[in-house]
Amino acid sequence: MRITEVIVTPIAIPDVPLANTKGVHPSVFLRAVIEVKTDTGLVGLGEAYGAKRTLTGLQTVAPTLEGLDPYDLRDLRRRVEQALPNSGGVNAPTALADHKVIDVVYSAYEIALLDIRGKEVGRPLYDLLGGAVRKTIPFGGYLFYKFAKQDLTFGPDIMGEVMTPDTLVAQAREFAAEYGFKSWKLKGGVLHPDEEVETLLKLREVFPNDGLRIDPMGGWTVETSLKVIDQLGGTAGGVLEYLEDPVRGMDAMSELSAQTDLPLATNLVVVEFEQIIEAVKKDAVQIVLSDHHYWRGATGAVHLGEICRAAGLGVSMHSNSHLGISLAAMRHVAAATPNLTYDCDTHYPWSTKEIIKGGRPTFRNGTLQVPEGPGLGVELDHEAVAELHALYNNAMVKDRDDTDEMMKYIPDYVRKVPRW
Amino acid sequence: MRITEVIVTPIAIPDVPLANTKGVHPSVFLRAVIEVKTDTGLVGLGEAYGAKRTLTGLQTVAPTLEGLDPYDLRDLRRRVEQALPNSGGVNAPTALADHKVIDVVYSAYEIALLDIRGKEVGRPLYDLLGGAVRKTIPFGGYLFYKFAKQDLTFGPDIMGEVMTPDTLVAQAREFAAEYGFKSWKLKGGVLHPDEEVETLLKLREVFPNDGLRIDPMGGWTVETSLKVIDQLGGTAGGVLEYLEDPVRGMDAMSELSAQTDLPLATNLVVVEFEQIIEAVKKDAVQIVLSDHHYWRGATGAVHLGEICRAAGLGVSMHSNSHLGISLAAMRHVAAATPNLTYDCDTHYPWSTKEIIKGGRPTFRNGTLQVPEGPGLGVELDHEAVAELHALYNNAMVKDRDDTDEMMKYIPDYVRKVPRW
Repeated sequence: MRITEVIVTPIAIPDVPLANTKGVHPSVFLRAVIEVKTDTGLVGLGEAYGAKRTLTGLQTVAPTLEGLDPYDLRDLRRRVEQALPNSGGVNAPTALADHKVIDVVYSAYEIALLDIRGKEVGRPLYDLLGGAVRKTIPFGGYLFYKFAKQDLTFGPDIMGEVMTPDTLVAQAREFAAEYGFKSWKLKGGVLHPDEEVETLLKLREVFPNDGLRIDPMGGWTVETSLKVIDQLGGTAGGVLEYLEDPVRGMDAMSELSAQTDLPLATNLVVVEFEQIIEAVKKDAVQIVLSDHHYWRGATGAVHLGEICRAAGLGVSMHSNSHLGISLAAMRHVAAATPNLTYDCDTHYPWSTKEIIKGGRPTFRNGTLQVPEGPGLGVELDHEAVAELHALYNNAMVKDRDDTDEMMKYIPDYVRKVPRW
Repeated sequence: MRITEVIVTPIAIPDVPLANTKGVHPSVFLRAVIEVKTDTGLVGLGEAYGAKRTLTGLQTVAPTLEGLDPYDLRDLRRRVEQALPNSGGVNAPTALADHKVIDVVYSAYEIALLDIRGKEVGRPLYDLLGGAVRKTIPFGGYLFYKFAKQDLTFGPDIMGEVMTPDTLVAQAREFAAEYGFKSWKLKGGVLHPDEEVETLLKLREVFPNDGLRIDPMGGWTVETSLKVIDQLGGTAGGVLEYLEDPVRGMDAMSELSAQTDLPLATNLVVVEFEQIIEAVKKDAVQIVLSDHHYWRGATGAVHLGEICRAAGLGVSMHSNSHLGISLAAMRHVAAATPNLTYDCDTHYPWSTKEIIKGGRPTFRNGTLQVPEGPGLGVELDHEAVAELHALYNNAMVKDRDDTDEMMKYIPDYVRKVPRW
């Protein structure tokens, strides 16, 4: 079995102005849909970031995959590295989506190859990862402060402006009613910490038994973080399940960690396997966020779980704005990672489109079942892809710049990390 | 596809009196041959230790595997743990073969399940591990001081008494002529360290370009180790490629490591995933020996490789007395572990029997090719198994006790670690 053709289709999906420490989401988010075809008539699917650097990487690698054996992940790695010299490494600049193109491109194709292998043998993808420890995958509600959407060209707003504790709680109530989530992650670092603390305390009142987390994306100083932890009742019996990336950088995380028992989680300071050991030595984090989009695919994500188990670290799951192919892969990874014991993050409720047949799956009590069909267990809806590809062509947005977008709302906005 | 039947057959293979810090090999070594059958007519093979505790574990678990899906390694783990309560953990007593029965039993069956999966899909086992980075697997010659065999009931001796530097070098020359090995591991801690140093220096003269290692199995003190390292020219341009388990225990290894740049390897102080982190924190070892027999099978061994890569540790491969099923699995693991950059250990030349069809493979320049057939790529020779099972039934030896055996040669022998 050999690969004969690889199709990479950039798509744009209407987004809403969700705020974070970098700024705010643009009017669309970009994804790349991957179809990998074999000489045996199988098609493997993948979904990756669609911003410029990743897309260029995917497109550069695509023609070099002809003749690849879908079982040979080592050969995939070699081909990606050869096609993208000097693209990887922790020291590459800027955002997560861009910072290690080799791993991101490898990961996208790895999923497609596993999809092919699962289809060939008639097995769900989780079976290729060692089997499922759980079939029901719990997700958490991902809560954002946001502006009311100004430019409705590409799609309507969801829930209008949410810039106060009370409107944020209303957002959570709406999600609870529609999705049944049992845990909540607040994207923090946006409002003054006192307001974010107030938000969390109100969420705790409304959802007394649910897990709560906040992710200020490095937006706080160590001092601010300690004050927030104190305001939220510290560790034991406190409000938070864990605190994600409160401060910027491994050393600041380590400094904070030494002064609190509240578990610290990260998808910013530990994004390479080699960084896990540094984090353990410095006791900088206690939980690492898994994500098959950059942890070397699904097999890499399972390796991450094993390494975290060996290192005594917890595992949770990171999300980026995504559609149904990624949502399927996330569930397979969650099913096959025994120590992924936290509810998974997902941006899924923040879009309304879908590119897989059967449309958007229905969450029950905040959970989705892992797909039981062969491979990823999802099929591409080519019409839907064509529609979103047309939107990509029309949207002009070809890269993601949350700071630039923010200046449409706050013209004198200056990005500052830490801000508080 | 479900498992319908599991057959565990203990066998005994004529051995020769190879010396180590525990004593000397008994007249036979014991293995267990595993056949796992499915309702689709496939048979997966495995080979494990055959001493009492492992054999009992394998036999206890065997009937509980009925109905298991060969893809579901998590379910295999659950079944093994349920069938063998209180059998695992690093603190269980005595020898490697016994110290963690759960991992050992799991590992044996894991290989058989992967064999089934490979056969089902018509793929060599390495393809289920992510593909082969190498197809030619280099092995090193495993050199032992030994007695002349006294009891020839179960088989002839190989090479007579080897208790001096010169006869050991003659042993290596013989292996070099027959197998073409390009690196050498001396089982040390047997003679006075000065004699073992002399042996290594003579090996260096005869094989000036080959890798040399010595494994005193914790038989030396830190002081002795430092003296030996000095006598062997230290690290840079020195005689040794690495030094394996010179001293006993993680802390002693750490103490030694702090005083030398020579890489230290281990299959004694790091035998559980959790110990890797401790070893890194203490900088106790620089190389970990992989072995699918106890590192949770082939997938576990590949995980080990990933963890060692992340931790900046090297990977080599450990051997126990074995036959062709294990030899096949070792080659698949070596093929699929990118950072297994040292020649693999093997006891293979120290026996003359085989249980796979086609008999004993031929080493060329110290290497063997990874089998390219489906799964492990080897088939069982049932007649040969029956013959060695009969030997098992006749041999009376049902456990391994090198110290007890030693007293047949040296009646007042007392085991002492460290001895020197």
